[in-house]
Amino acid sequence: MVRSSNERSRRRRDAQRDLILRAAARLFRDRGVADTGMREIAAAADLSPANLYYYFKGKDEILFYCQDRALDSMLAAVAGAKRGRGSVAARLDGVLRTHVSTLLGEVDGASAHLLVDALPPPLRVRIVAKRDRYERAVRGLVAAGVRSGEFATASPALVTRAMLGALNMTVLWFRPDGAASATDVGRELAQYLVRGLHIHSAA
Amino acid sequence: MVRSSNERSRRRRDAQRDLILRAAARLFRDRGVADTGMREIAAAADLSPANLYYYFKGKDEILFYCQDRALDSMLAAVAGAKRGRGSVAARLDGVLRTHVSTLLGEVDGASAHLLVDALPPPLRVRIVAKRDRYERAVRGLVAAGVRSGEFATASPALVTRAMLGALNMTVLWFRPDGAASATDVGRELAQYLVRGLHIHSAA
Repeated sequence: MVRSSNERSRRRRDAQRDLILRAAARLFRDRGVADTGMREIAAAADLSPANLYYYFKGKDEILFYCQDRALDSMLAAVAGAKRGRGSVAARLDGVLRTHVSTLLGEVDGASAHLLVDALPPPLRVRIVAKRDRYERAVRGLVAAGVRSGEFATASPALVTRAMLGALNMTVLWFRPDGAASATDVGRELAQYLVRGLHIHSAA
Repeated sequence: MVRSSNERSRRRRDAQRDLILRAAARLFRDRGVADTGMREIAAAADLSPANLYYYFKGKDEILFYCQDRALDSMLAAVAGAKRGRGSVAARLDGVLRTHVSTLLGEVDGASAHLLVDALPPPLRVRIVAKRDRYERAVRGLVAAGVRSGEFATASPALVTRAMLGALNMTVLWFRPDGAASATDVGRELAQYLVRGLHIHSAA
């Protein structure tokens, strides 16, 4: 009995944390990190400031978790693609689409992805290490495509950085109320960026 | 006689300004804009601070001219490509390579390109307008390739942003003492990014 009640309260706490992270990510994106305080985050999440501090020690921790969760989704996508079957192109395409939907979606509160410089050094180090892990995994997928003969590139490292750079920059211009949805943007960009890797005789 | 002496002194002043901009751009890149003051720029350019103020009113003006000159080079490249002959692919390839060499080269002092947010609003507005003009010109070239049947893309606007995003991000990771030169990086990225536009039957 005790255990199931603990379990319930843990789930309730997790759900509340999710809600806070989503609200905070929207504020970070719309007003900037510098102009967003714990007071505003509390109001957006319908909590008292004291209640907010029960969940998070401060703004830095919230920003950290926004980025950390986004990277977890991206890492899960690339791990799945590594184990997957089918062409490397199709699997890489899926990873790039997940990257965009994670960044631009409301759900994950990940639009803070580019704000790594706003973190204090100890937290920044952890995010940078996780990002490096993600970049290495994507580069591994590109290299696998080269080995299998699907892709042609002299430099998987350079091309991977170009891909991720192109995807990350969407955060700067994407508008949720614009003509193209996050899904449209992801599909179009993934297609373009995977195409550039293919062996083909150019016109 | 007076005119030619004026001419000489104007040229001398321009050369001195170039030298200052290059020195400042290196400092902005290596230490960050916030940690670079007029005193450091003067020392790096071998001038007294008072002498530096004869050329520029302050750090913001220097940062502005670094970015402005870079955009002038890029705009010149895309204007040349518009008038040029040969395939659109080859002309776009040249524009993208110039973009990278302008950003990463020591000569133009353009590594400050990503620092537009560090400018005060009146100067920022001018840089943003010039950037938009450049982006439109590149997009026009992509659209010309679609019209001519060389390129296939549903969205020249999106693909252009992806290309420029990938190129601009090089500033964040490129190291002049690394294995790949700025020219190598430009050639490799331009090839990859133009390839993705081509009509071809993917494997």
